Amino acid sequence: MRILGIDPGLRTTGFGVIECDGPKLHYVASGTISTTKHELGDLPGRIKVLFEGVREVVQRYAPQQAAMEIVFVNVNPQSTLLLGQARGAAMAALVSADLPVSEYTAVQMKKGVVGHGQAKKEQVQEMVARLLALPGLPGKDAADALGLAIMHAHAGHTMAALAAATPLSRRQHAQYRGGRTY
Amino acid sequence: MRILGIDPGLRTTGFGVIECDGPKLHYVASGTISTTKHELGDLPGRIKVLFEGVREVVQRYAPQQAAMEIVFVNVNPQSTLLLGQARGAAMAALVSADLPVSEYTAVQMKKGVVGHGQAKKEQVQEMVARLLALPGLPGKDAADALGLAIMHAHAGHTMAALAAATPLSRRQHAQYRGGRTY
Repeated sequence: MRILGIDPGLRTTGFGVIECDGPKLHYVASGTISTTKHELGDLPGRIKVLFEGVREVVQRYAPQQAAMEIVFVNVNPQSTLLLGQARGAAMAALVSADLPVSEYTAVQMKKGVVGHGQAKKEQVQEMVARLLALPGLPGKDAADALGLAIMHAHAGHTMAALAAATPLSRRQHAQYRGGRTY
Repeated sequence: MRILGIDPGLRTTGFGVIECDGPKLHYVASGTISTTKHELGDLPGRIKVLFEGVREVVQRYAPQQAAMEIVFVNVNPQSTLLLGQARGAAMAALVSADLPVSEYTAVQMKKGVVGHGQAKKEQVQEMVARLLALPGLPGKDAADALGLAIMHAHAGHTMAALAAATPLSRRQHAQYRGGRTY
């Protein structure tokens, strides 16, 4: 099972791809999609770069599932609106490729990866590097995205264990993997 | 020149397609994309319906340009975030089809179509019906989308007149129509 994690932002969107084989996790790729360096500084231009960037990651690494960070309202309403638009475009790239998308808050991700919801960015980077046996620390945005993928792998592993226990759960899990329920 | 107007919303997104031949305007199509009737009541499901709906409209009516309403922050920050995500997904459908997207506020659209920025929804419906010689009133969301397309046609007509006057403006206009600047 290959999982793509996405940490959306209008300037920088982190992505991380892992493969999970039962409880074992393997690193595949990670990086960021930046929309700040482009001449197309206006919103439609940025949305295009972001949408096509996420789509390219999906095509190149062919994940079967996606995990995305749930964003929250900002103190600045205008920033909330911009971040919302970026997240909508990134999500459109995932769902239009028929990827089932699961959503997690940053607190859920930190709890799942580091062990407590108030973990600092550096702790996420260190724990992600350890869990995936990386030779160095990933960047902060990429680490968050990899953390989301790891979080989803843990959730999926739990679901697979449940599915093995009861036929009803197995049916639900099969639907989930098939992308019928998001 | 065929223009698609989009009035984005998470529940209902209005669309309107017109054709403009110099100052003459012709109605092509209009309607709404609704994400409320679907069983997929969660956000990824709605984003998928919205993205694919806009994409279908683009494929069916083959517009050369798009005009989209600029949304504003809501009193409810959570609504702002949701509307932002819907708008980002709709915009992704336009720019990923290589459509140049122009953005107008509701006030600009009302000024351009009705004559003053504080016009009521009903006035937009009536004026759109008159300008496009429709046999009846379009729905409110569709009327706003048609109003955006009309507003953009007016802007384009003004630009074409300017372009005819000076070589520099013509070059800018050519770039604009070619979708190089958004």
